Amino acid sequence: MSPEALTHTQPPVSEPADSQPVESGEFPRSVNWANPRVSAILETAAACFSKGGFTATTLADIGRELGLRKSIVHYYFASKAALVHEVQSFAYGRYLDALRQGLSEESRAQGGLKGLWRSLRDGKALRSLNIELWSEGRRDPELAARAGTLQDEARRLLAEHLTGHKGVTAAQANDFAILTLAVLDGLTVLADREGSDERAERAFETFLSLLERR
Amino acid sequence: MSPEALTHTQPPVSEPADSQPVESGEFPRSVNWANPRVSAILETAAACFSKGGFTATTLADIGRELGLRKSIVHYYFASKAALVHEVQSFAYGRYLDALRQGLSEESRAQGGLKGLWRSLRDGKALRSLNIELWSEGRRDPELAARAGTLQDEARRLLAEHLTGHKGVTAAQANDFAILTLAVLDGLTVLADREGSDERAERAFETFLSLLERR
Repeated sequence: MSPEALTHTQPPVSEPADSQPVESGEFPRSVNWANPRVSAILETAAACFSKGGFTATTLADIGRELGLRKSIVHYYFASKAALVHEVQSFAYGRYLDALRQGLSEESRAQGGLKGLWRSLRDGKALRSLNIELWSEGRRDPELAARAGTLQDEARRLLAEHLTGHKGVTAAQANDFAILTLAVLDGLTVLADREGSDERAERAFETFLSLLERR
Repeated sequence: MSPEALTHTQPPVSEPADSQPVESGEFPRSVNWANPRVSAILETAAACFSKGGFTATTLADIGRELGLRKSIVHYYFASKAALVHEVQSFAYGRYLDALRQGLSEESRAQGGLKGLWRSLRDGKALRSLNIELWSEGRRDPELAARAGTLQDEARRLLAEHLTGHKGVTAAQANDFAILTLAVLDGLTVLADREGSDERAERAFETFLSLLERR
Protein backbone atom coordinates (compact mmCIF):
# COMPACT_ATOMS: atom_id res chain seq x y z
CA MET A 1 0.00 0.00 0.00
CA SER A 2 1.47 3.38 -0.90
CA PRO A 3 1.39 6.17 1.67
CA GLU A 4 -0.70 8.21 -0.76
CA ALA A 5 -3.43 5.58 -0.64
CA LEU A 6 -3.82 6.39 3.03
CA THR A 7 -5.46 9.69 2.34
CA HIS A 8 -8.49 7.65 1.28
CA THR A 9 -8.25 4.71 3.67
CA GLN A 10 -7.87 3.91 7.33
CA PRO A 11 -4.34 4.16 8.74
CA PRO A 12 -2.59 0.77 8.48
CA VAL A 13 -1.79 -1.20 11.59
CA SER A 14 1.48 -2.58 10.18
CA GLU A 15 4.55 -0.53 9.31
CA PRO A 16 5.27 -0.01 5.60
CA ALA A 17 8.62 -1.15 4.16
CA ASP A 18 9.92 2.40 3.85
CA SER A 19 9.55 3.17 7.52
CA GLN A 20 11.74 0.33 8.77
CA PRO A 21 14.69 1.39 10.94
CA VAL A 22 17.65 2.51 8.87
CA GLU A 23 21.24 2.76 10.09
CA SER A 24 22.99 5.48 8.15
CA GLY A 25 24.18 8.30 10.39
CA GLU A 26 25.43 9.29 13.83
CA PHE A 27 21.89 9.71 15.12
CA PRO A 28 19.28 7.01 15.43
CA ARG A 29 16.52 7.23 12.86
CA SER A 30 13.46 5.06 12.84
CA VAL A 31 12.07 6.24 9.49
CA ASN A 32 13.59 6.56 6.04
CA TRP A 33 14.60 10.21 5.56
CA ALA A 34 15.01 9.58 1.83
CA ASN A 35 11.25 9.08 1.54
CA PRO A 36 9.97 12.46 0.22
CA ARG A 37 6.91 12.37 2.43
CA VAL A 38 8.97 11.59 5.53
CA SER A 39 11.39 14.42 4.81
CA ALA A 40 8.47 16.79 4.12
CA ILE A 41 6.95 15.89 7.49
CA LEU A 42 10.30 16.35 9.24
CA GLU A 43 10.95 19.74 7.58
CA THR A 44 7.46 20.96 8.40
CA ALA A 45 7.55 19.55 11.92
CA ALA A 46 10.90 21.32 12.52
CA ALA A 47 9.37 24.61 11.30
CA CYS A 48 6.19 24.14 13.40
CA PHE A 49 8.12 23.16 16.57
CA SER A 50 10.50 26.06 16.03
CA LYS A 51 7.59 28.48 15.66
CA GLY A 52 5.15 27.17 18.27
CA GLY A 53 7.36 25.19 20.66
CA PHE A 54 7.08 21.46 21.33
CA THR A 55 4.38 21.55 24.00
CA ALA A 56 1.86 23.62 22.05
CA THR A 57 2.37 21.96 18.64
CA THR A 58 0.27 18.88 17.85
CA LEU A 59 0.62 16.24 15.14
CA ALA A 60 -2.65 17.63 13.75
CA ASP A 61 -1.07 21.10 13.43
CA ILE A 62 1.81 19.62 11.47
CA GLY A 63 -0.53 17.60 9.25
CA ARG A 64 -2.68 20.68 8.61
CA GLU A 65 0.38 22.66 7.54
CA LEU A 66 1.15 19.93 4.99
CA GLY A 67 -2.45 19.38 3.95
CA LEU A 68 -2.31 15.87 5.40
CA ARG A 69 -4.62 14.15 7.83
CA LYS A 70 -3.24 13.55 11.30
CA SER A 71 -3.49 9.81 10.58
CA ILE A 72 -0.89 10.14 7.82
CA VAL A 73 1.56 11.76 10.20
CA HIS A 74 0.77 8.93 12.66
CA TYR A 75 1.45 6.42 9.88
CA TYR A 76 5.12 7.43 9.98
CA PHE A 77 5.46 8.56 13.59
CA ALA A 78 3.74 6.51 16.26
CA SER A 79 3.65 9.41 18.74
CA LYS A 80 4.55 13.03 19.12
CA ALA A 81 7.53 11.97 21.25
CA ALA A 82 8.75 9.78 18.38
CA LEU A 83 8.42 12.70 15.97
CA VAL A 84 10.21 15.09 18.34
CA HIS A 85 13.13 12.66 18.66
CA GLU A 86 13.24 12.15 14.91
CA VAL A 87 13.15 15.90 14.24
CA GLN A 88 16.04 16.29 16.67
CA SER A 89 18.08 13.63 14.84
CA PHE A 90 17.20 15.31 11.54
CA ALA A 91 18.22 18.78 12.82
CA TYR A 92 21.45 17.46 14.33
CA GLY A 93 22.34 15.61 11.13
CA ARG A 94 21.98 18.91 9.28
CA TYR A 95 24.01 20.75 11.93
CA LEU A 96 26.90 18.30 11.59
CA ASP A 97 26.68 18.49 7.79
CA ALA A 98 26.90 22.30 8.05
CA LEU A 99 29.80 21.99 10.46
CA ARG A 100 31.67 19.63 8.13
CA GLN A 101 30.90 21.93 5.22
CA GLY A 102 32.16 24.98 7.11
CA LEU A 103 35.30 23.18 8.17
CA SER A 104 36.11 21.67 4.79
CA GLU A 105 35.58 24.86 2.77
CA GLU A 106 37.70 26.68 5.25
CA SER A 107 40.40 24.12 5.61
CA ARG A 108 40.87 24.50 1.87
CA ALA A 109 40.51 28.26 1.52
CA GLN A 110 41.67 29.94 4.70
CA GLY A 111 42.75 27.37 7.24
CA GLY A 112 40.31 29.04 9.63
CA LEU A 113 36.71 28.83 10.77
CA LYS A 114 35.32 31.91 9.03
CA GLY A 115 32.82 29.92 6.99
CA LEU A 116 31.38 28.24 10.04
CA TRP A 117 28.79 30.79 11.16
CA ARG A 118 27.72 31.40 7.57
CA SER A 119 27.40 27.69 6.98
CA LEU A 120 25.25 27.23 10.08
CA ARG A 121 23.29 30.39 9.26
CA ASP A 122 21.97 28.80 6.11
CA GLY A 123 20.04 26.35 8.23
CA LYS A 124 18.41 29.22 10.14
CA ALA A 125 15.12 27.46 10.97
CA LEU A 126 16.92 24.35 12.22
CA ARG A 127 19.40 26.52 14.10
CA SER A 128 16.57 28.28 15.95
CA LEU A 129 15.03 24.90 16.68
CA ASN A 130 18.06 24.28 18.90
CA ILE A 131 16.69 26.80 21.40
CA GLU A 132 13.49 24.76 21.66
CA LEU A 133 15.52 21.56 21.96
CA TRP A 134 17.58 22.99 24.85
CA SER A 135 14.38 23.84 26.66
CA GLU A 136 12.66 20.52 25.90
CA GLY A 137 15.84 18.56 26.67
CA ARG A 138 15.70 19.89 30.23
CA ARG A 139 12.68 17.63 30.75
CA ASP A 140 13.41 14.79 28.31
CA PRO A 141 16.53 12.79 29.22
CA GLU A 142 16.64 11.12 25.79
CA LEU A 143 16.72 14.50 24.01
CA ALA A 144 19.42 15.69 26.42
CA ALA A 145 21.51 12.55 25.88
CA ARG A 146 21.31 12.98 22.10
CA ALA A 147 22.25 16.65 22.44
CA GLY A 148 25.32 15.48 24.37
CA THR A 149 26.15 13.06 21.55
CA LEU A 150 25.87 15.88 18.99
CA GLN A 151 28.15 18.10 21.03
CA ASP A 152 30.71 15.32 21.44
CA GLU A 153 30.76 14.67 17.70
CA ALA A 154 30.90 18.38 16.85
CA ARG A 155 33.67 18.89 19.39
CA ARG A 156 35.63 15.98 17.93
CA LEU A 157 35.33 17.41 14.39
CA LEU A 158 36.37 20.89 15.49
CA ALA A 159 39.24 19.69 17.70
CA GLU A 160 40.55 17.55 14.85
CA HIS A 161 40.39 20.61 12.59
CA LEU A 162 42.22 22.85 15.06
CA THR A 163 44.93 20.42 16.20
CA GLY A 164 48.29 21.29 14.67
CA HIS A 165 47.06 24.64 13.30
CA LYS A 166 49.79 27.12 14.36
CA GLY A 167 51.10 24.72 16.98
CA VAL A 168 47.81 24.05 18.77
CA THR A 169 48.10 20.90 20.90
CA ALA A 170 45.35 18.29 21.00
CA ALA A 171 44.41 19.38 24.55
CA GLN A 172 44.24 23.07 23.55
CA ALA A 173 42.25 22.16 20.44
CA ASN A 174 39.73 20.35 22.63
CA ASP A 175 39.36 23.41 24.89
CA PHE A 176 39.00 25.71 21.87
CA ALA A 177 36.44 23.38 20.33
CA ILE A 178 34.27 23.37 23.48
CA LEU A 179 34.50 27.16 23.61
CA THR A 180 33.75 27.58 19.90
CA LEU A 181 30.59 25.47 20.19
CA ALA A 182 29.48 27.54 23.20
CA VAL A 183 30.09 30.72 21.18
CA LEU A 184 27.99 29.34 18.31
CA ASP A 185 25.17 28.47 20.76
CA GLY A 186 25.33 31.88 22.44
CA LEU A 187 25.30 33.64 19.08
CA THR A 188 22.32 31.54 18.00
CA VAL A 189 20.43 33.04 20.96
CA LEU A 190 21.60 36.55 19.98
CA ALA A 191 20.70 36.20 16.29
CA ASP A 192 17.34 34.63 17.09
CA ARG A 193 16.42 37.38 19.56
CA GLU A 194 17.51 40.16 17.20
CA GLY A 195 15.99 38.50 14.14
CA SER A 196 19.25 39.36 12.39
CA ASP A 197 22.63 37.71 11.91
CA GLU A 198 24.57 40.96 11.66
CA ARG A 199 25.80 41.36 15.24
CA ALA A 200 26.24 37.64 15.70
CA GLU A 201 28.39 37.34 12.59
CA ARG A 202 30.53 40.27 13.70
CA ALA A 203 30.89 38.75 17.18
CA PHE A 204 31.94 35.44 15.63
CA GLU A 205 34.63 37.27 13.67
CA THR A 206 35.79 38.96 16.87
CA PHE A 207 36.03 35.51 18.46
CA LEU A 208 37.99 34.09 15.54
CA SER A 209 40.44 36.99 15.63
CA LEU A 210 41.04 36.26 19.35
CA LEU A 211 41.56 32.58 18.55
CA GLU A 212 43.93 33.49 15.74
CA ARG A 213 46.09 35.74 17.93
CA ARG A 214 46.16 33.48 20.96
CA MET B 1 -6.37 43.19 55.03
CA SER B 2 -3.14 41.25 55.35
CA PRO B 3 -2.23 38.73 52.64
CA GLU B 4 -2.29 36.03 55.33
CA ALA B 5 -5.95 36.74 55.99
CA LEU B 6 -6.66 35.61 52.44
CA THR B 7 -6.02 31.99 53.22
CA HIS B 8 -9.31 32.07 55.08
CA THR B 9 -11.34 34.47 52.94
CA GLN B 10 -12.30 35.10 49.35
CA PRO B 11 -9.66 36.77 47.19
CA PRO B 12 -10.07 40.56 47.33
CA VAL B 13 -11.27 42.45 44.27
CA SER B 14 -9.08 45.48 45.00
CA GLU B 15 -5.27 45.55 45.01
CA PRO B 16 -3.59 45.77 48.40
CA ALA B 17 -1.21 48.64 49.16
CA ASP B 18 1.90 46.46 48.95
CA SER B 19 1.22 45.37 45.38
CA GLN B 20 1.11 48.84 43.90
CA PRO B 21 3.56 49.47 41.05
CA VAL B 22 7.04 50.35 42.31
CA GLU B 23 9.77 52.07 40.32
CA SER B 24 13.10 50.89 41.65
CA GLY B 25 15.12 49.05 38.99
CA GLU B 26 15.93 48.68 35.30
CA PHE B 27 13.04 46.30 34.78
CA PRO B 28 9.38 47.06 35.21
CA ARG B 29 7.85 45.52 38.30
CA SER B 30 4.19 45.63 39.14
CA VAL B 31 4.46 44.11 42.62
CA ASN B 32 6.61 44.90 45.62
CA TRP B 33 9.54 42.47 45.61
CA ALA B 34 10.34 43.45 49.20
CA ASN B 35 7.09 41.82 50.34
CA PRO B 36 8.24 38.39 51.68
CA ARG B 37 5.24 36.61 50.21
CA VAL B 38 5.79 38.21 46.80
CA SER B 39 9.47 37.25 46.78
CA ALA B 40 8.60 33.71 47.92
CA ILE B 41 6.12 33.40 45.04
CA LEU B 42 8.69 34.76 42.58
CA GLU B 43 11.44 32.41 43.80
CA THR B 44 9.13 29.41 43.69
CA ALA B 45 7.66 30.40 40.33
CA ALA B 46 11.19 30.74 38.91
CA ALA B 47 12.05 27.25 40.18
CA CYS B 48 8.77 25.75 38.86
CA PHE B 49 9.08 27.42 35.44
CA SER B 50 12.73 26.36 35.26
CA LYS B 51 11.80 22.77 36.08
CA GLY B 52 8.55 22.34 34.15
CA GLY B 53 8.71 25.03 31.48
CA PHE B 54 6.27 27.92 31.14
CA THR B 55 3.58 26.18 29.14
CA ALA B 56 3.11 23.20 31.43
CA THR B 57 3.35 25.09 34.75
CA THR B 58 0.14 26.54 36.19
CA LEU B 59 -0.46 29.10 38.93
CA ALA B 60 -2.02 26.24 40.90
CA ASP B 61 1.26 24.24 40.63
CA ILE B 62 3.18 27.20 42.03
CA GLY B 63 0.68 27.73 44.83
CA ARG B 64 0.77 24.01 45.71
CA GLU B 65 4.57 24.12 45.95
CA LEU B 66 4.24 26.99 48.46
CA GLY B 67 1.26 25.50 50.27
CA LEU B 68 -0.87 28.42 49.07
CA ARG B 69 -4.23 28.42 47.34
CA LYS B 70 -4.19 29.45 43.69
CA SER B 71 -6.30 32.47 44.70
CA ILE B 72 -3.43 33.81 46.81
CA VAL B 73 -1.10 33.66 43.83
CA HIS B 74 -3.82 35.41 41.82
CA TYR B 75 -4.06 38.05 44.54
CA TYR B 76 -0.58 39.25 43.58
CA PHE B 77 -0.46 38.26 39.92
CA ALA B 78 -3.56 38.83 37.83
CA SER B 79 -2.60 36.22 35.24
CA LYS B 80 0.05 33.67 34.43
CA ALA B 81 1.41 36.07 31.78
CA ALA B 82 1.81 38.77 34.46
CA LEU B 83 3.68 36.31 36.68
CA VAL B 84 5.92 35.16 33.80
CA HIS B 85 6.86 38.77 33.03
CA GLU B 86 7.50 39.51 36.68
CA VAL B 87 9.64 36.38 37.11
CA GLN B 88 11.64 37.49 34.09
CA SER B 89 12.21 40.95 35.60
CA PHE B 90 13.15 39.29 38.89
CA ALA B 91 15.61 36.89 37.20
CA TYR B 92 17.15 39.68 35.12
CA GLY B 93 17.54 41.92 38.14
CA ARG B 94 19.48 39.11 39.82
CA TYR B 95 21.54 38.54 36.66
CA LEU B 96 22.57 42.19 36.55
CA ASP B 97 23.34 42.15 40.28
CA ALA B 98 25.58 39.08 39.73
CA LEU B 99 27.21 40.80 36.78
CA ARG B 100 27.91 43.94 38.79
CA GLN B 101 29.19 41.80 41.65
CA GLY B 102 31.50 39.84 39.31
CA LEU B 103 32.78 43.02 37.73
CA SER B 104 33.31 44.94 40.95
CA GLU B 105 35.12 42.16 42.81
CA GLU B 106 37.29 41.64 39.82
CA SER B 107 37.95 45.26 39.07
CA ARG B 108 39.36 45.46 42.58
CA ALA B 109 41.26 42.19 42.71
CA GLN B 110 42.44 41.25 39.25
CA GLY B 111 41.21 43.78 36.74
CA GLY B 112 39.70 40.86 34.85
CA LEU B 113 36.48 38.93 34.50
CA LYS B 114 37.42 35.72 36.30
CA GLY B 115 34.77 36.10 38.96
CA LEU B 116 32.02 36.51 36.41
CA TRP B 117 31.11 32.88 35.72
CA ARG B 118 31.36 32.01 39.41
CA SER B 119 29.19 34.96 40.29
CA LEU B 120 26.52 33.94 37.76
CA ARG B 121 26.87 30.30 38.78
CA ASP B 122 25.63 31.08 42.26
CA GLY B 123 22.26 31.91 40.76
CA LYS B 124 22.11 28.49 39.08
CA ALA B 125 18.31 28.08 39.08
CA LEU B 126 17.78 31.58 37.70
CA ARG B 127 20.56 31.04 35.18
CA SER B 128 18.86 27.88 33.87
CA LEU B 129 15.59 29.79 33.71
CA ASN B 130 17.20 31.83 30.93
CA ILE B 131 16.94 28.81 28.62
CA GLU B 132 13.18 28.72 29.21
CA LEU B 133 13.00 32.49 28.70
CA TRP B 134 14.80 32.24 25.33
CA SER B 135 12.31 29.64 24.22
CA GLU B 136 9.25 31.50 25.54
CA GLY B 137 10.57 34.83 24.22
CA ARG B 138 10.42 33.42 20.71
CA ARG B 139 6.61 33.59 21.01
CA ASP B 140 6.16 36.50 23.41
CA PRO B 141 7.36 39.85 22.01
CA GLU B 142 7.29 41.52 25.42
CA LEU B 143 9.60 38.88 26.92
CA ALA B 144 11.90 39.22 23.91
CA ALA B 145 11.96 43.02 24.19
CA ARG B 146 12.85 42.81 27.89
CA ALA B 147 15.57 40.25 27.10
CA GLY B 148 16.97 42.78 24.64
CA THR B 149 16.91 45.46 27.36
CA LEU B 150 18.79 43.14 29.72
CA GLN B 151 21.42 42.42 27.08
CA ASP B 152 21.85 46.11 26.34
CA GLU B 153 22.33 46.92 29.99
CA ALA B 154 24.70 43.98 30.56
CA ARG B 155 26.67 44.92 27.45
CA ARG B 156 26.94 48.52 28.64
CA LEU B 157 28.25 47.40 32.06
CA LEU B 158 30.78 45.02 30.52
CA ALA B 159 31.94 47.45 27.83
CA GLU B 160 32.43 50.15 30.46
CA HIS B 161 34.50 47.68 32.49
CA LEU B 162 36.66 46.66 29.53
CA THR B 163 37.25 50.10 28.00
CA GLY B 164 40.75 51.35 28.67
CA HIS B 165 41.94 47.98 30.08
CA LYS B 166 45.27 47.34 28.28
CA GLY B 167 44.44 49.89 25.60
CA VAL B 168 41.02 48.49 24.62
CA THR B 169 39.05 51.13 22.70
CA ALA B 170 35.36 51.75 23.36
CA ALA B 171 34.44 50.09 20.05
CA GLN B 172 36.56 47.01 20.81
CA ALA B 173 35.14 46.88 24.33
CA ASN B 174 31.63 46.83 22.88
CA ASP B 175 32.54 43.94 20.55
CA PHE B 176 34.18 42.03 23.40
CA ALA B 177 31.16 42.66 25.64
CA ILE B 178 28.74 41.25 23.04
CA LEU B 179 30.98 38.22 22.59
CA THR B 180 31.42 37.71 26.35
CA LEU B 181 27.64 37.69 26.89
CA ALA B 182 27.24 35.15 24.07
CA VAL B 183 29.93 32.99 25.69
CA LEU B 184 28.09 33.16 29.03
CA ASP B 185 24.83 32.16 27.31
CA GLY B 186 26.48 29.31 25.40
CA LEU B 187 28.16 28.05 28.58
CA THR B 188 24.83 28.21 30.41
CA VAL B 189 23.50 25.73 27.84
CA LEU B 190 26.59 23.54 28.30
CA ALA B 191 26.48 23.57 32.13
CA ASP B 192 22.73 22.97 32.17
CA ARG B 193 22.98 20.00 29.78
CA GLU B 194 25.90 18.45 31.66
CA GLY B 195 24.41 19.18 35.07
CA SER B 196 27.88 20.42 36.04
CA ASP B 197 29.81 23.67 35.86
CA GLU B 198 33.22 22.07 35.47
CA ARG B 199 33.66 22.18 31.70
CA ALA B 200 31.85 25.49 31.40
CA GLU B 201 34.09 27.12 33.97
CA ARG B 202 37.19 25.79 32.24
CA ALA B 203 35.89 27.03 28.87
CA PHE B 204 35.24 30.47 30.37
CA GLU B 205 38.83 30.54 31.60
CA THR B 206 40.01 29.59 28.10
CA PHE B 207 37.95 32.49 26.74
CA LEU B 208 39.39 34.94 29.26
CA SER B 209 42.94 33.89 28.42
CA LEU B 210 42.21 34.56 24.73
CA LEU B 211 40.76 37.96 25.65
CA GLU B 212 43.78 38.71 27.81
CA ARG B 213 46.30 37.88 25.06
CA ARG B 214 44.46 39.62 22.24
